[in-house]
Order: sequence, then structure tokens, then C-alpha cells
Amino acid sequence: MHFVLSHWPQCCRIVESVGPGVTEFNEGDHVLTVFIGECKTCRQCKSDKSNTCEVLGLERRGVMHSDQQTRFSIKGKPVYHYCAVSSFSEYTVVHSGCAVKVSSIAPLEKICLLSCGLSAGLGAAWNVADISKGSTVVIFGLGTVGLSVAQGAKVRGASRIIGVDTNPEKCEKAKAFGVTEFLNPNDNNEPVQQVIKRITDGGADYSFECIGDTGMITTALQSCCDGWGLAVTLGVPKLKPEVAAHYGLFLSGRTLKGSLFGGWKPKTDLPSLVNRYLKKVRNTRKPSCGNCA
Amino acid sequence: MHFVLSHWPQCCRIVESVGPGVTEFNEGDHVLTVFIGECKTCRQCKSDKSNTCEVLGLERRGVMHSDQQTRFSIKGKPVYHYCAVSSFSEYTVVHSGCAVKVSSIAPLEKICLLSCGLSAGLGAAWNVADISKGSTVVIFGLGTVGLSVAQGAKVRGASRIIGVDTNPEKCEKAKAFGVTEFLNPNDNNEPVQQVIKRITDGGADYSFECIGDTGMITTALQSCCDGWGLAVTLGVPKLKPEVAAHYGLFLSGRTLKGSLFGGWKPKTDLPSLVNRYLKKVRNTRKPSCGNCA
Repeated sequence: MHFVLSHWPQCCRIVESVGPGVTEFNEGDHVLTVFIGECKTCRQCKSDKSNTCEVLGLERRGVMHSDQQTRFSIKGKPVYHYCAVSSFSEYTVVHSGCAVKVSSIAPLEKICLLSCGLSAGLGAAWNVADISKGSTVVIFGLGTVGLSVAQGAKVRGASRIIGVDTNPEKCEKAKAFGVTEFLNPNDNNEPVQQVIKRITDGGADYSFECIGDTGMITTALQSCCDGWGLAVTLGVPKLKPEVAAHYGLFLSGRTLKGSLFGGWKPKTDLPSLVNRYLKKVRNTRKPSCGNCA
Repeated sequence: MHFVLSHWPQCCRIVESVGPGVTEFNEGDHVLTVFIGECKTCRQCKSDKSNTCEVLGLERRGVMHSDQQTRFSIKGKPVYHYCAVSSFSEYTVVHSGCAVKVSSIAPLEKICLLSCGLSAGLGAAWNVADISKGSTVVIFGLGTVGLSVAQGAKVRGASRIIGVDTNPEKCEKAKAFGVTEFLNPNDNNEPVQQVIKRITDGGADYSFECIGDTGMITTALQSCCDGWGLAVTLGVPKLKPEVAAHYGLFLSGRTLKGSLFGGWKPKTDLPSLVNRYLKKVRNTRKPSCGNCA
């Protein structure tokens, strides 16, 4: 079985043509294409507490949401989609519910990051965790998502943003995104959650798992404090799907919460995020890749 | 090793004497004695987001918080405390931080329930889950705690309150406390979480684990809905301490949160709960055991 793959965080397109019945788009529109859509009619879309559309949710079978068929083929054999986006192709076909019209003056090579990683991180910090000023934050994994959480935490005025990664090269880059302290688990003899509890006098206010490792979800829970510690999990674990944690972590006041695409509703929220980016660029006159916070 | 045991939910006393340095109480005061205290000075007590006092938290070694000693003996040998309360004795000794002065006109045999089970359930519904009007609630385990969650959900105007228990005798009693539907897992061939998802069109808004079984915590998570489903765990599991759940439950929008003593700060909150009970009794002129909601 062949797939058109997709690099989730980079998918911004110009509409080449629209299918029958689609009135929302015209040729030439600039769109972000997204791996989850927004039908605006289901129970989830109608609620302001959710972005997990029941109709256009995460599609992993490689077909279109509308008719469960593919739109690609090679020598007569079907080539399957990947997560509704299939961005590793020059042309792609997406459900209109998975495309979001955005300002045509926004540079595609910058705002493409808003179609996944950057939005996922900022939204986890703002919408899901609702980080408060002066708080302590710990982030496991400093890829695009983790760095975007750091950026979101910085905007919210977090006083300490502890970034955790086994790659020492992440240290300097992370500091540019707001990380105030860098921790490499390989540099310590004790488990990283113990280090964090020690240096934060009992644990962080918020912890974020941005790796996609269920073991690190447990570590994130252990790294936040009694009473009100909130662990947010953003990753999609590849190996072990079960999260495991001692019940006492919850009974002493912790919360574990999931974050899919940062809680943003794609059609409702992404255009204003793009406009926020444009405003920032105009104000700073120093555009920097992905820095829309 | 001998212990003075304690039936947590029943502990309301009259002060017989006070130790040196204690100025908060006088002989004859009516007090609720509680298994967690409130020092009012630690990081947790100073925060309005927590009731897990760092100084007077759950004590399981059978000694006094103050000097790590016992206050009971038999034939010269120490007899240990149980959870700071030791209520299965005619006289007991508690740390002043674990006693709460309450109105002396409140009947001790009624308000004793506020020292544990009743408060734990009401607080889980009000403080921790913050149940909203019209919502759907499912409660696993219909003992004192579960029935109190039902009572709390009813006061908040929940439209459906589904009680789950393997004891069929709980059905009628539960309905008196607000449960609108009773489910006995033994009456169905399919797993109870599937039944709940089916009859609630995708899952409840809130689920509560009131048994003390980590397996039921997982079931509670599975029984609440995508998007905003909140599972609250109140029990103290006796057998398997590890909670296990598929990461997808979180990624699709669920939250797992712990509730210890319903989030109430004992000294700050219990006196007003007692007064609320007294007011209700005056208004109804029909006092009913434990019905303080």
C-alpha cells in the first residue's frame, strides 16, 4: 500500500480548484490544511470546550472523510492519503472542512507552521493549561511543539521555564524561545523528576509532555506539584500506548489532561492566529520563522 | 503493633482538655476531627487551589504529626493512631490542626458525616468537578461518598445522574439521593463503559470513581466523553496502585483529576458546611441524616 506522506507542521497551499458543492473557497485562495477539521455541526464543534470534531477528526486509514476513497493513484492502483493532508505532494486533495482560508499576504513558508506544531504548542500553553503569570513550567522534549509551549509560557509571564531534552544542542535554541533553564537527563545520576522536584521545591505548576512517550507522561505527572500540578500530554506515543501512574499522584491533587492541536478549532481560530503573526511582523519589522506569539 | 482504629466518616467530638500552647480551643468546644489538617502556613494551605497541607497531610504511620509519638499505650506498650483521628475510642488525642471548631447546636450524630465521606462527595462534585447545570454524570460506587456526589450533582442541576453499583439494593436508596438511572454491571453482557457510552450518546460529561479500585478509574475515563470528559478519582485503592489508560483517551480531550476530601480546606470550609446543614434543617423542619446539601 502506498501513501502520500505528510510533514504535519508544513502545510499551507493555494487552492487550484474546488469540488462540486464547495462554496467556501475559490481558486487562488490561500489555505492552511489541517489534520483535524471542523464541521461546525457536531456535538464537539458546537461546544466551546472542544476541538475534536466528530466528523472530521483524525483520519488514519488513508481515505477521504467524505466517501472513504482515495484521490491519488499510480498505474491504476490507489495511493492512500496521510492524515487528511498528504502534504508531501505538489498537489493534494483535502476535504473542505480540513482547509482554512487565511490572509493571502501572509508568507506561506512561515505560516505553514501554524497548521500543526506551533499551534499545538501555543494552544497547549494558552487554551489547555491556561498558564498563569509567575508560574513554573517544565517541558519534556524541545522540538517544534515543545519550543512553542515555551514561547506560549513566556508570553503568559511564566517565571521559570525548564526545558528537558537529551540533545545538548537544544540548549541555546531553547533559550531563544523562552526556556530559562535547560536540563539534560543524561547529565544527572538521579531521575529527572527528582531533579525537577528538588530545584522547584516540590514540583512545577505545569508540565508538558511533547515527545510522544507514555513513560514521559508519567514523568511529567511526577514532576509537577501536589495540590494543583497539571500535566498536559501533547504527543502521539509510537511504542507503548498505555499511560501508567500511581493513583497517589492524582489523590494528592494532580491533573492529567490531553491536548490535541492545542485546543484550537481550525476554522474558528487559525485565521486570527495568522493575523496575530502578521501584526507582530509589522510591529517588529524583523520577521522570524514561526514567531507568531 | 496495636492501633486505635477509625471510622473516617464518623468523628465529631467535644473537647475534654487542650494541650500546652493551644489557644484555638477551650474545654466543651464541639469539634470535627479530620484525617487531613490545615496548618494555614505551608505553600499548599496558602494557595486557594489546594487542601493538601504539607504539614498535616495524611498520616499513615500511626503517630502524632507534632512529635512522631503516640498518645495511647496499653501495659506500657505504645498503641498507634490511625489517620490522625483514632475515632474508635472513647477519648482520643488529635493535633489541633486536625480539629475544626463547629457550632455547638449542630447534632454531633449528624454532622460527623461531614468529617469525611459526605464532604468528600459534595466537594468532588462542587469544588473539583464544578458540575454544570444540565450535564450528565456517572458515579461508580454508591457508598456514602458516591451518594454524596449524587447529592452534589443534583444540587448543581445535573440532568442525568447514572449510579453504578453491583449491589442491587443500592438502587432505591440511590434514587433518594438524586440518582436518576441505576446500572448494575452484572446485568449487562457488555462492559459497563460501553453501556454508558451508548445510553449517553458518546459518554458522560463527568464520571466519578468512588470505589477505590484503579481498574474503575480507567473505566471512569472510558465512560466520559471526548472533548471535555472529566473523570474524578476519590477512592483509595487497596490492591493495585497503578492507574493505566490508553493515551488516546487523553488526546481526544479527557482529563483525569484527583479529589482528596473534596478539595475542602478543613478549618476554612467545614464550619460553613455545618451552618449550611443547620440552615437546611431549619428551613425544612425535617432533619434527615447527612442531608446538608
